Amino acid sequence: MNKLPYRITLEEKDLPRKWYNLKAVMKELPPPPLHPATLKPCKPEDLKPVFCEKLIEQEMNTTDKYIEIPEKLFEFYRMIRPSPLIRAYNLEKVLDTPAEIYYKFEGTNTSGSHKLNTAAAQVYYAKEEGLTSLTTETGAGQWGTAMAMACAYYGIDLTVYMVKVSAEQKPYRKAVIETYGGKIIPSPSDTTEVGRKILEENPGTGGSLGCAISEAIEVALKSKNCRYVLGSVLDHVLLHQSIIGEETRIACEKFGIEPDIIIGCAGGGSNFGGLIAPFIGDRIAGKNKIRFIGVEPASCPSLTRGKYAYDFGDTGKTTPLLKMYTLGSGFIPSPNHAGGLRYHGMSPVLSKLYHDGYIEACAYEQSKVFEAAVSFARCEGILPAPESSHAIKAAIDEAVKCREAGEKKTIIFGLSGTGYFDLTAYMSYNDGTMTDYIPSDEDLEKGFSSLPKVD
Amino acid sequence: MNKLPYRITLEEKDLPRKWYNLKAVMKELPPPPLHPATLKPCKPEDLKPVFCEKLIEQEMNTTDKYIEIPEKLFEFYRMIRPSPLIRAYNLEKVLDTPAEIYYKFEGTNTSGSHKLNTAAAQVYYAKEEGLTSLTTETGAGQWGTAMAMACAYYGIDLTVYMVKVSAEQKPYRKAVIETYGGKIIPSPSDTTEVGRKILEENPGTGGSLGCAISEAIEVALKSKNCRYVLGSVLDHVLLHQSIIGEETRIACEKFGIEPDIIIGCAGGGSNFGGLIAPFIGDRIAGKNKIRFIGVEPASCPSLTRGKYAYDFGDTGKTTPLLKMYTLGSGFIPSPNHAGGLRYHGMSPVLSKLYHDGYIEACAYEQSKVFEAAVSFARCEGILPAPESSHAIKAAIDEAVKCREAGEKKTIIFGLSGTGYFDLTAYMSYNDGTMTDYIPSDEDLEKGFSSLPKVD
Repeated sequence: MNKLPYRITLEEKDLPRKWYNLKAVMKELPPPPLHPATLKPCKPEDLKPVFCEKLIEQEMNTTDKYIEIPEKLFEFYRMIRPSPLIRAYNLEKVLDTPAEIYYKFEGTNTSGSHKLNTAAAQVYYAKEEGLTSLTTETGAGQWGTAMAMACAYYGIDLTVYMVKVSAEQKPYRKAVIETYGGKIIPSPSDTTEVGRKILEENPGTGGSLGCAISEAIEVALKSKNCRYVLGSVLDHVLLHQSIIGEETRIACEKFGIEPDIIIGCAGGGSNFGGLIAPFIGDRIAGKNKIRFIGVEPASCPSLTRGKYAYDFGDTGKTTPLLKMYTLGSGFIPSPNHAGGLRYHGMSPVLSKLYHDGYIEACAYEQSKVFEAAVSFARCEGILPAPESSHAIKAAIDEAVKCREAGEKKTIIFGLSGTGYFDLTAYMSYNDGTMTDYIPSDEDLEKGFSSLPKVD
Repeated sequence: MNKLPYRITLEEKDLPRKWYNLKAVMKELPPPPLHPATLKPCKPEDLKPVFCEKLIEQEMNTTDKYIEIPEKLFEFYRMIRPSPLIRAYNLEKVLDTPAEIYYKFEGTNTSGSHKLNTAAAQVYYAKEEGLTSLTTETGAGQWGTAMAMACAYYGIDLTVYMVKVSAEQKPYRKAVIETYGGKIIPSPSDTTEVGRKILEENPGTGGSLGCAISEAIEVALKSKNCRYVLGSVLDHVLLHQSIIGEETRIACEKFGIEPDIIIGCAGGGSNFGGLIAPFIGDRIAGKNKIRFIGVEPASCPSLTRGKYAYDFGDTGKTTPLLKMYTLGSGFIPSPNHAGGLRYHGMSPVLSKLYHDGYIEACAYEQSKVFEAAVSFARCEGILPAPESSHAIKAAIDEAVKCREAGEKKTIIFGLSGTGYFDLTAYMSYNDGTMTDYIPSDEDLEKGFSSLPKVD
């Protein structure tokens, strides 16, 4: 029997009461978002018709290292948190590695992923501001589920534009969202101008995330007491997700764990950014030498093969321009079961840290990722989401390197969600029909050609 | 902010290291199981071709109040346990009740339910005994999932006979079981004599739990290193599930919680029996006055409308006879989404306690149960399994009585699993197509006519 518990679950009194604002400790800040019409830095008032005021304030905050979690939001957090930090004793045994492996598991709440951390915060602020409804989009469905749960709790109406093909392929995701009282509209729809236009041009389309975003924003813009919310990429989303990193830091300090490597999957970057926030803050201040590794699918490799450039956040080219690692908003990711990682860009904060050499990145093909997922599931008892399994794969590879070098390193990775709703993907892995797609250089060039001319 | 934490999660050092054996403290024991051919009490050797030896020993143990959890099994338990005891602050607020409500939530492990507690134990003992494979049946799929996880961990081959119609309607359950390496055979199948016979007589049949049990037992009987395992009803299963009650008791003592009422859903009875074990032991010893309420579906009311009689455990009439509250093994429960509660009989231990007046029972129609489930989901953030939602409904009713009487009682209920895999049921509730079926007295008489002539 090992001395350290298998699961470290913080007591409620030890839970973090503040978020960690990475931008307050970065030596250089990411360049500001630009207004798409003027190409001048966005002002808060540019964003007010779309986003809640308090969230815009957080988005722009570059001075406060800690931002207090409001009491009424903490009451929600203590319902769904802490998430456990788990020592992967069984995985270590299977890998026969001297490395110590830990994972921070965000999948124990009903929404099944870390998304609920920011959904709750965004809905809380909307409620405080006196708003009555919110709109958003969802692709894989994790974000829509999290939003539906948070809106049910705070009593806010929710309309979710769900990519039509997802709504059809994932009826259970739809069922959860509706059980929590969310209204689902398959996108494109005839409820918006942009939707009607797309339907007219292409009646048989299955929709896209870009289109769903445009529809959700249009609805928010047209109503006084309604705003739009986004589940990743933006700075205030990373801020809310820093609760993952803060809990991890507190657990590490309490149990004397000193990580050498921290790993997370990276789609828009909110899970990875949240996990590493306080640790990379200390790294910037010269207090540790931790390696940070973001893991992406080989089919959508924004960090490993993208360009650091100003780009739109949506394929409809309506959002402010963000300076980020991107494949171009016109890049069409090839099919991949990790829907949450199929995004052309990357959080501007993470992009800047990557650009400045503070974090590393790697990419894997999905068949290798599922191989890692299944061996993890069998020995650790948790069925991981395809997205999260990218981090598992990288952690296994690092642990194997430790075995080969005889080094006893401490590895922490983020297990951002469960695979309960991704069983179609596991079925295709189990029956051997899963295939890997890697974009060719020509595919990438096509995506880059969609980049706006700014720099 | 309330003083008591929202979630009580025991530290690993406080976890129970022993199971609680209810039979050692009962004033009168349940009558013994009878051999179906001789109608004489079963001897251990009668059961050896079917069950693991250690489990038969536990099944027969009426003397040891505590039975030690083996070290290598504890290593599995500490991976999936403790489960949290959660104070339902939000539900209390919604109900505006002076009652304090707590729930013990067994759905945080990948299998999604309490079934894993006994699956792990049964597979562990099979491994210790040198067996190489196990067979079982599954209907709703929770038990098959739990068995697949435990078998993957301990390295035992698993064959699951899955009711054909379930295998077709629940491809995702099948996918999880296969991801964990379990082999699924839709039942009836051509792999057994009994299966071939049934297929010959009725080629289009969708199968039944009774038939799946018979197939699984036949395969176990024919192989030297293979045994059969069962997920509920039997005494050793209740013993393993007493870990739920022991954790709850320890948490109550640590935080000064004194329950007045403990509620659980009851199908075969293992979840309810496990939750109440140490508390009802104290009740028998005159140390408390707790009310214990078992909740069943109105469509399958074995406690509330059944007979206390010797009956077969399966519809194929091959198992030993158990003295229990039963609707008759020939009773065909009308459609209900709580598949785990669609069983004609009830644990002999619980049946005896009910017969002797230690526990109460009530029954609800499923539309009322889902109404309770949805309001619980919206305020407490957990999507409950249909089975578990029966306990929610009863707890809500008791809490409302407290409001009306102005009484501050303490209610604990068992939330045995999540509804992740039951979204078809939620869909039918959401779209208003869910209907209630209550068996008529004639339906019940038909079931009773299948009872064997023993008493």
